[in-house]
Amino acid sequence: MTNTSEQDRVVIFDTTLRDGEQSPGATMTHDEKIEIAGLLDEMGVDIIEAGFPIASEGDFEAVRDISKLAVNSVICGLARAIYKDIDRCWDAVKHAKRPRIHTFIGTSPLHRDIPGLSQDEMAVRIHDTVTHARNLCDNVQWSPMDATRTEEDYLLRVVEIAIKAGATTINIPDTVGYTAPRESADLIRLLIARVPGADEVVFATHCHNDLGMATANALAAVEGGARQIECTINGLGERAGNTALEEVVMALKVRNDIMPYRTRIDATRIMNISRRVATISGFAVQYNKAIVGKNAFAHESGIHQDGILKNAETFEIMRPEHVGLAETSLVMGKHSGRAALRAKLRDLGYELGDNQLRDVFVRFKALADRKKEVFDDDLVTLMRDSSTAAAHDSLQVKYLRVICGTDGPQTADLVLTIDGVDRQVTAQGDGPVDATFNAVNQLFPHNARLQLYQVHAVTEGTDAQATVSVRMEEDGKIVTGQAADTDTVVASAKAYVTALNKLLVRRTKSAPDADVKSVSYMDVS
Amino acid sequence: MTNTSEQDRVVIFDTTLRDGEQSPGATMTHDEKIEIAGLLDEMGVDIIEAGFPIASEGDFEAVRDISKLAVNSVICGLARAIYKDIDRCWDAVKHAKRPRIHTFIGTSPLHRDIPGLSQDEMAVRIHDTVTHARNLCDNVQWSPMDATRTEEDYLLRVVEIAIKAGATTINIPDTVGYTAPRESADLIRLLIARVPGADEVVFATHCHNDLGMATANALAAVEGGARQIECTINGLGERAGNTALEEVVMALKVRNDIMPYRTRIDATRIMNISRRVATISGFAVQYNKAIVGKNAFAHESGIHQDGILKNAETFEIMRPEHVGLAETSLVMGKHSGRAALRAKLRDLGYELGDNQLRDVFVRFKALADRKKEVFDDDLVTLMRDSSTAAAHDSLQVKYLRVICGTDGPQTADLVLTIDGVDRQVTAQGDGPVDATFNAVNQLFPHNARLQLYQVHAVTEGTDAQATVSVRMEEDGKIVTGQAADTDTVVASAKAYVTALNKLLVRRTKSAPDADVKSVSYMDVS
Repeated sequence: MTNTSEQDRVVIFDTTLRDGEQSPGATMTHDEKIEIAGLLDEMGVDIIEAGFPIASEGDFEAVRDISKLAVNSVICGLARAIYKDIDRCWDAVKHAKRPRIHTFIGTSPLHRDIPGLSQDEMAVRIHDTVTHARNLCDNVQWSPMDATRTEEDYLLRVVEIAIKAGATTINIPDTVGYTAPRESADLIRLLIARVPGADEVVFATHCHNDLGMATANALAAVEGGARQIECTINGLGERAGNTALEEVVMALKVRNDIMPYRTRIDATRIMNISRRVATISGFAVQYNKAIVGKNAFAHESGIHQDGILKNAETFEIMRPEHVGLAETSLVMGKHSGRAALRAKLRDLGYELGDNQLRDVFVRFKALADRKKEVFDDDLVTLMRDSSTAAAHDSLQVKYLRVICGTDGPQTADLVLTIDGVDRQVTAQGDGPVDATFNAVNQLFPHNARLQLYQVHAVTEGTDAQATVSVRMEEDGKIVTGQAADTDTVVASAKAYVTALNKLLVRRTKSAPDADVKSVSYMDVS
Repeated sequence: MTNTSEQDRVVIFDTTLRDGEQSPGATMTHDEKIEIAGLLDEMGVDIIEAGFPIASEGDFEAVRDISKLAVNSVICGLARAIYKDIDRCWDAVKHAKRPRIHTFIGTSPLHRDIPGLSQDEMAVRIHDTVTHARNLCDNVQWSPMDATRTEEDYLLRVVEIAIKAGATTINIPDTVGYTAPRESADLIRLLIARVPGADEVVFATHCHNDLGMATANALAAVEGGARQIECTINGLGERAGNTALEEVVMALKVRNDIMPYRTRIDATRIMNISRRVATISGFAVQYNKAIVGKNAFAHESGIHQDGILKNAETFEIMRPEHVGLAETSLVMGKHSGRAALRAKLRDLGYELGDNQLRDVFVRFKALADRKKEVFDDDLVTLMRDSSTAAAHDSLQVKYLRVICGTDGPQTADLVLTIDGVDRQVTAQGDGPVDATFNAVNQLFPHNARLQLYQVHAVTEGTDAQATVSVRMEEDGKIVTGQAADTDTVVASAKAYVTALNKLLVRRTKSAPDADVKSVSYMDVS
């Protein structure tokens, strides 16, 4: 690949932490954002959009801390076309080795109506705000939101203004997921052909998947001359989400014959980060999702249809290992030792220190005692679980005993350790989970509402571990909790308490409502 | 739309029951196939591919019975390029008002290698088998499998042969999900321009989603001249699935300005059939799935970000009601009467007779006693549940009491009615679900393995009903079971027993292994 010219290089701009995180219910904690940013940086993402600093204190802190930690990636923050937004954004990203300010304004008639700006007034605003951003930072991205529904002449005019004012990247968002491939390519071609100075900037494409064409539209834009693709892991994002990073990266690899462009992404990291984002966001990936779905590679299905897969190439255009999906090989059991566990975890992408390994080994042994075979997926679950349950949590499940069944009422007998003190209660409910949650609520009253409750068996068989995911909302704050156990009711209690612990952290760390997004995309007047 | 010419009409060919059902783990029962076929027919699907008759006795019976019941749709069966396949297919579809035989052979070098046929030998086979099919049925579709990886010259040659032999539809499958939009359009254009007789047949496009471009590729093929789109509900299908029916239908509606084609589909039926296929197949739709995902329409999220949605058009290119997603309106409760329930169910797409309504009303009241508010989703769950639990089932859960929690062992005390006789047992296990399933297994020994176990809360709140889905496999036979209850352990027991009842039906109805797919797509020699 070294002899390919720079003209063929497509820059990957990941907005999982901004556009992805913004999707209803996908809110991530500070630590989760830091972790995902680290994985994105490691996998070769060129630019990480880390958040929208003016939107909340939490967003600001995440962008600032990710800026400090980033190794290779450019760190970008979002800002409306308002000076105070841009200043706040700069305050967060300036800590990065390579910072970028991304400022935007809605340029379509529908979006111009909201601040009530005329075309001329908006043009002035664009000139002034981009100039202001460029005075702070030499890497400035500008986006005309809803570009695909903006009048062609006006779009040409404002893009020229932004370039003259110092924007170095011009992003063309298909905000409502409205465009189609040919149109997407043509729009970029038009801009490059007609806007003075277009050859001095990078054009970017930002597509939404409302009609199921985000990936094709992004790739078509590249054919039209765009050299930056904005995307998210698993296609996470508002409504039907954004272009999926894994899809554009693999399409450019597999069809390099007709799309001769290259990215810097290490595709073998895809499965690991996909799973992590699914767990953290609570947005599970469907079985038939391209690249990262459980069925995307036939051999994963557990069903070996006799003879069909004699020649894998017949039905596979890429190998599972190219996206980091290891063949399930060595199964671990109760007789596996510490070295075997360490080796296995390394294969799965976890590099542990001695202390960490010791803790995980204890938990592994406990699991192996209850479960004959410990599979890769069990270990991944174990690792996730150990990163969520922390010794300093205020609330901890100490003891739980539940009686349930057809003849109610279902009762839960719970001992919860609250700030080091054991407290006990017996509660009833409609079913074992309701009874358990009621018991928690009696010992630790709160106003959070359960928005989502899901259980998935980690592997096959009736003795499998279950992973429980919950999502809760209190006064606009959203938290998620996950836990795994061979007992689904115990896993439910732990997941619920994990979510409440996060809520507690949020309550104490921020002023009331301070991390509710306090501004909207519309609020640009 | 009445003045649009026939040239602009795109025929929708749904293969949920063939390519969708073929995806590992998505196997449907006979009754489920009949139900889905009815919904497809009602929503205006032009052609229903109902199965692969030679593959199994079950497939044959499904295609035959759907043929007998279809009102408007053409019913199509699949057949390899073998006389006995084609005969068997005809025996199944001949009962339809409008039958079609679909015969195929893999024409790419990789696929030609499998039967070991030379180009000339395969050409003769194609001529002979299409001729044979046409002698039986005047509606014959022919597919060169893996067309997008077949040499251009050879593809032109074999398509011409198939047309001359009497094929009326030529389908161009992108079997491995390899193509991209421009290439997809160009291929159809090439065929239409170069193959003699191309103007007398309909060209079809059949895309897979391995690189996330199935929808865009199908629409591009239409731009290239294809007038039949092959697709599935929810994009169900092998690996990453097929083109999603809901995406192509809505894209053609929303972007009729640049894609001036029309289908006969009643889009307001989309949500209902999408939910039904998700439940039956056990393949949940991800939140950020285009059109049918829970988050596809922002207002569904339950979070009303202040001010953002003041003008819905700003961020929405289609209205939720256009795809049959009703605003959650009237919430039902324990004081709601029978007339209100009937009216509500009618809104949700269920038309009930008096007997059915009586049964559902009893179950509704029982639910309303345990749950303050009964939402639309609860009623949909209730309706699904009542269609699965049947009085004549061999196994029925009569009583269940489970003790579980942190200090094992977990025990389940179960009374199962087996062919009218109550039998009791107490069993232990790793967790309440394992203990319950062990209890069932002791009373009713079997060799089925649990492949999938999932729980989803139907609505928000801790008192929500939970829907449990299980998938089990025994000697290659796959069955699924679903059940809902406010007690997840009770729902688990019922789902497990439902699956076992299906297994029993399958055991008795067919000879050993008779409904395991006995042929593969490769087996064409």
